[in-house]
Amino acid sequence: MGGTDTRNLTRQLADYVTSARLEDIPEEARKEARRALVNFMGCALGGSRHDAMDMTLAALGPYAGPPTARVLGRPEHTDPLLASLLNGISSHVHDYDDTTPSNYIHPTSPVASALFAYASMHPVRGADLELAYVLGYETVTRIGNATYPAHYQAGWHSTGSIGVFGAAVAIGKLLGLEAAQMVWAIGLAATQSAGLREMFGSMAKSFHPGRSAQSGYVAALLAQRGFTAGGHALEGPRGFAAVEAADYDLAMVSEGLGRKYHFHQNTYKPFPCGIVIHPTIDACIQLRRSHQIDAGQIAAVRLRVAPLVRDLCDKKQISTGLEGKFSVYHAASIGLVRGKAGLAEFTDEAVNEPLMRQVRERVVAVADPAMSEDSVQVEVAMQDGKTHSLLLEHSLGNLQRPLSDAQLEDKFRDQATMLPATQVEALIAACWQLERIDDVRKLVTLAVPRAG
Amino acid sequence: MGGTDTRNLTRQLADYVTSARLEDIPEEARKEARRALVNFMGCALGGSRHDAMDMTLAALGPYAGPPTARVLGRPEHTDPLLASLLNGISSHVHDYDDTTPSNYIHPTSPVASALFAYASMHPVRGADLELAYVLGYETVTRIGNATYPAHYQAGWHSTGSIGVFGAAVAIGKLLGLEAAQMVWAIGLAATQSAGLREMFGSMAKSFHPGRSAQSGYVAALLAQRGFTAGGHALEGPRGFAAVEAADYDLAMVSEGLGRKYHFHQNTYKPFPCGIVIHPTIDACIQLRRSHQIDAGQIAAVRLRVAPLVRDLCDKKQISTGLEGKFSVYHAASIGLVRGKAGLAEFTDEAVNEPLMRQVRERVVAVADPAMSEDSVQVEVAMQDGKTHSLLLEHSLGNLQRPLSDAQLEDKFRDQATMLPATQVEALIAACWQLERIDDVRKLVTLAVPRAG
Repeated sequence: MGGTDTRNLTRQLADYVTSARLEDIPEEARKEARRALVNFMGCALGGSRHDAMDMTLAALGPYAGPPTARVLGRPEHTDPLLASLLNGISSHVHDYDDTTPSNYIHPTSPVASALFAYASMHPVRGADLELAYVLGYETVTRIGNATYPAHYQAGWHSTGSIGVFGAAVAIGKLLGLEAAQMVWAIGLAATQSAGLREMFGSMAKSFHPGRSAQSGYVAALLAQRGFTAGGHALEGPRGFAAVEAADYDLAMVSEGLGRKYHFHQNTYKPFPCGIVIHPTIDACIQLRRSHQIDAGQIAAVRLRVAPLVRDLCDKKQISTGLEGKFSVYHAASIGLVRGKAGLAEFTDEAVNEPLMRQVRERVVAVADPAMSEDSVQVEVAMQDGKTHSLLLEHSLGNLQRPLSDAQLEDKFRDQATMLPATQVEALIAACWQLERIDDVRKLVTLAVPRAG
Repeated sequence: MGGTDTRNLTRQLADYVTSARLEDIPEEARKEARRALVNFMGCALGGSRHDAMDMTLAALGPYAGPPTARVLGRPEHTDPLLASLLNGISSHVHDYDDTTPSNYIHPTSPVASALFAYASMHPVRGADLELAYVLGYETVTRIGNATYPAHYQAGWHSTGSIGVFGAAVAIGKLLGLEAAQMVWAIGLAATQSAGLREMFGSMAKSFHPGRSAQSGYVAALLAQRGFTAGGHALEGPRGFAAVEAADYDLAMVSEGLGRKYHFHQNTYKPFPCGIVIHPTIDACIQLRRSHQIDAGQIAAVRLRVAPLVRDLCDKKQISTGLEGKFSVYHAASIGLVRGKAGLAEFTDEAVNEPLMRQVRERVVAVADPAMSEDSVQVEVAMQDGKTHSLLLEHSLGNLQRPLSDAQLEDKFRDQATMLPATQVEALIAACWQLERIDDVRKLVTLAVPRAG
């Protein structure tokens, strides 16, 4: 096991996944896995009413199977394969889900979208779902790290193209596949690996984790029935790595399997917008709170930012929430006016609110090559002559300043507006207590609107 | 239109596809399209009872939607998306479907598998299906030619990775998509483009055209509902060509669109086995017929073949039909013993038949670099001292010696053994008369076993 011999890597991974037990995984990794699932669940609820969801249901609902499964955040019943697709779209459509900076993958959406679809119709213990998720996450992150940056730079949206492996492995684990079947599941995942970065800026981006969740689920179901695939899907001469990455180190997939976990590499976005304007939002929220700033009395705001920020987010004259997600001026304004930046701060209404617009017009941003992309300097001049300033070196949500459990919960609540508050609190509690839940269907019931 | 400006290639293709009319397509292309569909239909029937089909139905049938569609050659009713997948598997699983030597794609399976699934549940005129098929075929072949050989050499099984475009375009045409929607359909196809050559030798190879038929169908359905995708899926900096081919000439996609057709590049396999042993089979069948050879009286058979033939097909001690598909010794034997080489000649029974085994053991194959892969010299020595020999320069089924309509029909009949002979003849006639059929469901009814 391990080492640098990767000639049977796919089989090695299959052997590990099929034999892994939750009790062998350290509590630190399990805790972080639950934090990732809390974050995922909130995002799935937050995106559940997006147009892309309604369109997908309208397009594919007529061909859905018996309605035995549930879609997170939605009243509809459908089959678990379509539910996987829908959960993947909802949890990624606001670009608010988790990110692994070592490979730029959003690792949880493709894995958990399939798992909760499966567990919405089968009796699954919470501990078993958590284990399957850990294995799916590790599979995605290890393959992602082993092929980064070449795979991503080639133009693959690795959340889709690598996410599919995690979904296949996770569903395969719940199905109880044997190692030979797991090899086929990984092969059938590899041969469905897809997703182009050319789709960024369109709904198709959110389709990627959805389709990879669904394709991974299909791979595991087929493998269970004996549908064969090549035995060297990852490492073979025409396998995933050779075909989809110009450079790679496959030893990173097997290195320390079962001993090392990669959850410390995962991060959670505090704000549903372009990551380069996160420091500005964060600093402005802090300034507002520290100095009890009355936004109506602001005379001027000066930002010193990394040049990339102005390259990507320099638009001041905006009228839609989507534009607001990529405006550093809107970012400063929402921090100072509202002291928060949830989904409600990136609506058309928020962008067009008079006070928000007034503050935005008073913001000036200066690009400074000395500033890192994770930092910002903000200076707020008040009409009474006072000045407040802050130099922020690491933005909230980055590896250096992870979101606290309480902040993850706040983010969750902000997105779960379609559910009654008591149900939201019960759902949050259930997510934290995942290991002790005897049937995940109880949790899923809390994640959908109640009938009537 | 046309020329070498490919900056809006995806839109150009979408404009063409949405506006194309059957009456603008020359009869020569339409006739060849029908030949391709006759060949496809026979292959779909021939593979319809393969284990891979039963496994797929067992794995995914429980999640299928309302059973409004039919699977070619099968008694089951299912939804059109699963039917697309199944038609794609059956029509490719024996490696007996058509091939375009200019790009090594099997172009018809992914396109026609989706089309007949669609037309099994919607009223579609034969002329409209034929038009949609021509557009799907042209899309696949043009993208295939434009990215060959780099795309294939990189390890992609282009029947899957490019077939998906043809399915999306063909179904999009039947759905009546507008050009903007067709652009999205092409984008959603591009971002599902998948299929690795690493899967060759396993069932996953036949999964490729099936999944691409299904994914293209999904792409068109989503686009119809407004689900957006990037607008430059083919030509963009992170689009299909840039990501999946190291070298390409996208002008070949648009060049002569609506004026030039590529059906003359398509070929039909006469025998369900490795293509390099086709010349041997062909020559032996001809020798047997010309000299009324009694296989029991054969003393020795000497073959002179291209070196690649022995590299790939040199196994003489065989016991399974699958091994027979890649044995030049079995190839000579079936030609001389049975005078034909259909599915029945590649079963375990055929391989183990005493006379077949006896002749096989008397075959010697000599590799000669002077022989092309399309040629063979065969010398048959009889026990009475007579010798018969033949030098074959071009094997049946290649571009130089296309199968005749009658030979396509014989190939069809050989594969349609699950249907009564009268039904087979009616189905063949219906395929030839496709343009005059007012509802393709009448044709599909002939392509499935009758109830009871």
